[in-house]
Amino acid sequence: MRILLVGAGGVGGAFTAIAARRDFFEAMVVADYDLERAEKAAATDERYVAAQVDASSQESVEALCREHRITHVMNAVDPVFNMPIFDGAFAAGADYVDMAMSLSRPHPDTPYSKCGVKLGDEQFAVAGEWEQAGRLALVGMGVEPGLSDVFARYAADHLFSEIDELGTRDGANLVVRDDDGHEIFAPSFSMWTTIEECLNPPVIWERASADVDGGWFTTPPFSEPEVFDFPEGIGPVECVNVEHEEVLLMPRWVDCQRVTFKYGLGDEFINILKVLNTLGLDKTEKVRVKGVEVSPRDVVAAVLPDPATVGPRMTGKTCAGLWVTGTGKDSRPRSTYLYHVVDNEWAMQEYGHQCVVWQTAVNPVVALELVARGTWSGAGVLGPEAFDAQPFLDLLTEYGSPWGMVEKPV
Amino acid sequence: MRILLVGAGGVGGAFTAIAARRDFFEAMVVADYDLERAEKAAATDERYVAAQVDASSQESVEALCREHRITHVMNAVDPVFNMPIFDGAFAAGADYVDMAMSLSRPHPDTPYSKCGVKLGDEQFAVAGEWEQAGRLALVGMGVEPGLSDVFARYAADHLFSEIDELGTRDGANLVVRDDDGHEIFAPSFSMWTTIEECLNPPVIWERASADVDGGWFTTPPFSEPEVFDFPEGIGPVECVNVEHEEVLLMPRWVDCQRVTFKYGLGDEFINILKVLNTLGLDKTEKVRVKGVEVSPRDVVAAVLPDPATVGPRMTGKTCAGLWVTGTGKDSRPRSTYLYHVVDNEWAMQEYGHQCVVWQTAVNPVVALELVARGTWSGAGVLGPEAFDAQPFLDLLTEYGSPWGMVEKPV
Repeated sequence: MRILLVGAGGVGGAFTAIAARRDFFEAMVVADYDLERAEKAAATDERYVAAQVDASSQESVEALCREHRITHVMNAVDPVFNMPIFDGAFAAGADYVDMAMSLSRPHPDTPYSKCGVKLGDEQFAVAGEWEQAGRLALVGMGVEPGLSDVFARYAADHLFSEIDELGTRDGANLVVRDDDGHEIFAPSFSMWTTIEECLNPPVIWERASADVDGGWFTTPPFSEPEVFDFPEGIGPVECVNVEHEEVLLMPRWVDCQRVTFKYGLGDEFINILKVLNTLGLDKTEKVRVKGVEVSPRDVVAAVLPDPATVGPRMTGKTCAGLWVTGTGKDSRPRSTYLYHVVDNEWAMQEYGHQCVVWQTAVNPVVALELVARGTWSGAGVLGPEAFDAQPFLDLLTEYGSPWGMVEKPV
Repeated sequence: MRILLVGAGGVGGAFTAIAARRDFFEAMVVADYDLERAEKAAATDERYVAAQVDASSQESVEALCREHRITHVMNAVDPVFNMPIFDGAFAAGADYVDMAMSLSRPHPDTPYSKCGVKLGDEQFAVAGEWEQAGRLALVGMGVEPGLSDVFARYAADHLFSEIDELGTRDGANLVVRDDDGHEIFAPSFSMWTTIEECLNPPVIWERASADVDGGWFTTPPFSEPEVFDFPEGIGPVECVNVEHEEVLLMPRWVDCQRVTFKYGLGDEFINILKVLNTLGLDKTEKVRVKGVEVSPRDVVAAVLPDPATVGPRMTGKTCAGLWVTGTGKDSRPRSTYLYHVVDNEWAMQEYGHQCVVWQTAVNPVVALELVARGTWSGAGVLGPEAFDAQPFLDLLTEYGSPWGMVEKPV
């Protein structure tokens, strides 16, 4: 296996640190628009070589694949660049893995009830071509989407005879402090992406029935607030519906009645996002400000601490997981939360990367190792739930990062 | 009287529209950094002539004064430019009027308990020179400060034998709607200045006593929240302490125990300001954003509708006033709110300017007319409370904009 990693930012950097300990691949080209950043990440292993890449150019990606005889392209940049990387890999005859899917566009007339262009639509549109060519695009293979989708497949195969709802629930108790020890507001993940996720109309999937038309539909942002009790000491966090890939992936492969994604933003963060939206500071279109043009959302991201730098000042744990309700294998009602918790101090000490980017990066490394072994194989545009979950969860545990499961009251 | 108006923005534009109906002055030079804006405002009266001015340059102001034989400089720009205009007027031998005073700087160590440089300190520092030269600088002569200070003098002269607190209270029920009739967030006054006022440490004055050191001191932003019931249908609004000139002006001329200023921001606006502060979007220092440098606060102001353009889409009333408590002339406890309400639809129809800028602009026109008549005269750096209030309130009423008074429970 010869990997092209596109993007040596937070997640890309953690990806190189994790993969450096594994022997399933022969070579990795670590590419970034910023060559210096690529070189820094590539310095950690002798199988790595740095390169410059323009992720917005299919030709740039394709040329790099051909030059280095790449077999697998790993996309670790902002999803706005998904299509040129995805198409570049295909053109070069390489397989492809990403951690977020092609972007959505709201319905022009009724954005808060009907879907417009959905997450991944552009990628699924060419699934037939990938399948015919015998090439694999493994999409949404981070932690969420990614591990959450693996949990869905595991629940269907091993825990439930009938599934009512597949509800991804993400929460954390991370706190960032300044040099004086005061808590500061510093998101642990890209603020640009967080705004995108949280202010886009959340998507929900429901099976058609006598009462329900069925299929995908949207709601207003921050809908259906719910307090979810997260395990391992994180505790209760206010969660709201958010647009996320799981809702687009799971119903394609896993039999169920309903799929949701709720993000444990907490009251303070929800309030901040609402204010940014009220003021128009979430907008990406440039505005003229005293002779220069800037995107307000870029300014919001620029005034906050860089998520890549908050690791050493952060304490707490992050939890990704899937809450499954339905009927167990024993024919009795069941409500189970399958989860994966990473402690920031452990991730910083063990890998030098903060827990949120580390947790995102570890899953595609595990998946690529399964692909390299031949344990996971397939052709087309496939989500993680299209593959057997057991070997994935076993290998994740072997990586030193076990998953957990807790029964909830039914 | 030959007036130089520096600034043809929202308040400056309303000033020209109001003054055009009065005959107390011979000529007015309407000056702005943007000559086109000056020309537009100057087109409304044949006594007006437009000019370009650099408000940050004392020399530019002084030269314009000499060229046009100016007797009175009217400052209608952002208070950041106060000192060059104030000094330029003095150098040219002209009298001076402004509506906000030279800026404060927080105490370097204990900003939320002690004053650093106070509002107006730079102007009061040279009061002796103005007095010796026989020149008048009438400072803080808008609506707040301005009319509120006139109310303080009126209360002391006509209503109270002893004053406990002089509490300026400002509130409104203004609503701005978009083209579809939906309420939108659109401040009716400069967002830049509102952030400056509301996030600076609020200042309070107290007379020294056995229990209190006395003098000026500060508190954290948004301190001492209070719901104040505003008259003429506006109703209850949440008010908080805000840094404002009245607190620096009133105790110099009016005998009392305590001076405060509370702004009726309302819950939503207070929350927005707190979020901007949490994120650092209130900062004025430039940050680097994708190759350009911008001040975050300028970006916030740029994404919101221009306050000068919201007038036609706004409904409701704005109220400026002074709540006075103490002992009445009849030796009984008294609690009185003296106020001035402007209805936006009236201001738009009558003058074509929205109510908040109109209410700010009408007061210096009235004051200049009293100066032109010789009713108000003096030398030095003086606040509005240094002059007899009765002729001011009578002339304001003659302008078609009467004031009111309501007794509160004691």
